Amino acid sequence: MATLDRINSLSPAEFSALFGKVYEHSGWIAERAFGRRPFASETELLLALWGAVQAASAREQLALLNAHPELAGREAQAGTLTDASKNEQRLAGLGALDDAQRAELGALNRRYLEQFGFPFIICARLNSREAIFGSLRARLTNAPEHEMQNALAQVGQIAQLRLLDILRDA
Amino acid sequence: MATLDRINSLSPAEFSALFGKVYEHSGWIAERAFGRRPFASETELLLALWGAVQAASAREQLALLNAHPELAGREAQAGTLTDASKNEQRLAGLGALDDAQRAELGALNRRYLEQFGFPFIICARLNSREAIFGSLRARLTNAPEHEMQNALAQVGQIAQLRLLDILRDA
Repeated sequence: MATLDRINSLSPAEFSALFGKVYEHSGWIAERAFGRRPFASETELLLALWGAVQAASAREQLALLNAHPELAGREAQAGTLTDASKNEQRLAGLGALDDAQRAELGALNRRYLEQFGFPFIICARLNSREAIFGSLRARLTNAPEHEMQNALAQVGQIAQLRLLDILRDA
Repeated sequence: MATLDRINSLSPAEFSALFGKVYEHSGWIAERAFGRRPFASETELLLALWGAVQAASAREQLALLNAHPELAGREAQAGTLTDASKNEQRLAGLGALDDAQRAELGALNRRYLEQFGFPFIICARLNSREAIFGSLRARLTNAPEHEMQNALAQVGQIAQLRLLDILRDA
């Protein structure tokens, strides 16, 4: 367990190395959160990271969404997922799709991306495989401006679980 | 638009009167967030409220979930919804269900409550009526400990939109 004292004494580079992966391919979030030290609790650290997302511009938020891989998609098949994403998708049973399921998910993912301009994002560790398919179909019926908020909320849940892992292991 | 200066100068009672309804029937959240004044931005106020939820005990978080009404359920029919909930459910088209849809939603709501111990919660303003039905069916397949986190994330989205309304109107 990383102590708060230790976290509060990290250099900017060390802080980024430790927390830069909380948000997928988006190290700028940890960089901005660093300025909010010292953190009085783990919750304060979580809020500092989430606050950097909330205070970001709409363009930066869209870039954050687009930094996420397609679920059980290209990156998974090419072996280029981040370790965190690989583990999350495996836990949700997305590594064990049969060909028909993989094709269906691929088609739904493409439709979602075309419709909204960013990939379908869901916190895979908090949803069953069935819930992931069902939520994807459901969210396809949402308005684009609303769906961006739904996607960001899922990013927040993913980040929260990743942060807990990092704090436990560090 | 409420200025930050004005918000930062509110008494505890005034602050609670203004922000106590951000979280459904859960004024304790605004009471705890009050201690984090002064707020340097609207984002800081949002984080202070959300931080009180995150720092709450599991029992308090469960009580927060259970402070929410059944979607298009008893409270809606009895006319006892909070103004915010009534408006949110109306915008999602839940006020215009036909008898079959109402019966189906009621059955799904009951199943969800029995399975998880708290009512199904979704940010109605960010989801179409179809997405609400689909998400409810999907989330019924989740593990209870995961679903509590999903419900809390929805509560956070509801709160964020309510806070923006209050800041705009105040």
